[in-house]
Amino acid sequence: MTGFDPADLTRNAFLGGRLTLLQPRGGYRAGIDPVLLAAACPARTGQSVLDLGCGGGVAGLCLAVRVPGIALTGVELQPDYADLARKNAALNGIAAEVVTADIQTLPADLRQRNFDHVIANPPYFREGRRSPSPDTGRETGLAETAPLKAWVDAAARRLAPKGTLTIIQRAERLPELIAASLERLGSLQFLPIAGRVGRDAHLVLVHARKGGRAAPRLAAPLVLHEGDRHVTDGDDYTQRISQVLRNGAPLNLWS
Amino acid sequence: MTGFDPADLTRNAFLGGRLTLLQPRGGYRAGIDPVLLAAACPARTGQSVLDLGCGGGVAGLCLAVRVPGIALTGVELQPDYADLARKNAALNGIAAEVVTADIQTLPADLRQRNFDHVIANPPYFREGRRSPSPDTGRETGLAETAPLKAWVDAAARRLAPKGTLTIIQRAERLPELIAASLERLGSLQFLPIAGRVGRDAHLVLVHARKGGRAAPRLAAPLVLHEGDRHVTDGDDYTQRISQVLRNGAPLNLWS
Repeated sequence: MTGFDPADLTRNAFLGGRLTLLQPRGGYRAGIDPVLLAAACPARTGQSVLDLGCGGGVAGLCLAVRVPGIALTGVELQPDYADLARKNAALNGIAAEVVTADIQTLPADLRQRNFDHVIANPPYFREGRRSPSPDTGRETGLAETAPLKAWVDAAARRLAPKGTLTIIQRAERLPELIAASLERLGSLQFLPIAGRVGRDAHLVLVHARKGGRAAPRLAAPLVLHEGDRHVTDGDDYTQRISQVLRNGAPLNLWS
Repeated sequence: MTGFDPADLTRNAFLGGRLTLLQPRGGYRAGIDPVLLAAACPARTGQSVLDLGCGGGVAGLCLAVRVPGIALTGVELQPDYADLARKNAALNGIAAEVVTADIQTLPADLRQRNFDHVIANPPYFREGRRSPSPDTGRETGLAETAPLKAWVDAAARRLAPKGTLTIIQRAERLPELIAASLERLGSLQFLPIAGRVGRDAHLVLVHARKGGRAAPRLAAPLVLHEGDRHVTDGDDYTQRISQVLRNGAPLNLWS
């Protein structure tokens, strides 16, 4: 029997209530990052999407809400999170296949298929580079067991010709991501994500196309919050980010 | 006898007239890029600076005007541009050593020295990727004979421990620059340069430290022009850029 004890799960509304997701109270809980990732994927109805390291399913399910009729597959290493992703898909009436597997050793069935789009929100910290969390699931969600290169390689192998990879990661790992992507993918685009205007980027979205030949592109930052600092009582997301988080709007970032 | 025919040279004012430079009428002529490069180098009085591929000397001489008492060395492949850099230094009363050499095969004397800072504005186009200019000097200034990796390698070898490299290049070559820098340098910082707010970066400044161990940093873009589009009669540089171009102000970009 895998899965979380229902008493350890909370129900959270995403996309202004269009999506309700169960999340473990003390484990890995989604911030806005997988929501931005979903908004950044250029999938269209009828296309196939692979969510690598899908956790509880947030990114893929956000995408399925915005783009009805995608064929969604998630891969998740941790059985209880994979189980949660299945439950979350069912809870929202979304057809999704969730495979419990290591992205580095996908089952033969998956290795024989390819996808129009791959999305991934890989763990943000390298193993051994931060203090482990007491919760193992949270730890695996945050600290990687596979290097970023393995994520890019797995994505590149599963992409159809001209298929796209969209990946969100901490900005300081952009060099690693680039080094991993150069051999296998083309038409690289980089989108810095900054908390406020004038701040360093803390996250980066990287978009690439299998077999793409366009010159790399460094786009203007996506800014999350209005103004120089937090002054309002509520949140202060920019209009564009608010549209993504509350209405499931697309980001339309890539050329 | 090397050097340009004086009749083929124009005199141009830089840094609000603090610097007067001779430039070949039909050859490689500096835009604002080497001026920004100079403003981005954190050299202090008494330190040594190597300007790799110095051309007519614009970047190094701008830096020498802003930071008096640096020990400036330029390396330039093309004898007539090296000669021009020497003339330009003399014209402005700046002590500078200019070595005519390929950055990939520096003379033994230079190979035995190291520098507190290296600056470089390598050619922007790869050989064979653009239509050659009818002017050979302009062509060598714009189209590289050495790959970016050779520039980073030459810089890394000549840097003193903790010395810095600051390099300006087209944004689309950021992946190449990163791949070249990862093995040899640390504490990488990336600064996108965009024409206007919200535009893609067309240039990027990369800053690195020999032996540095800080996490890579993706800074907010440096924006050149005010507003969404060109509306005034004159130029419309932002206050910050105007201070650099007209008063030789530093950019103070790096943490």
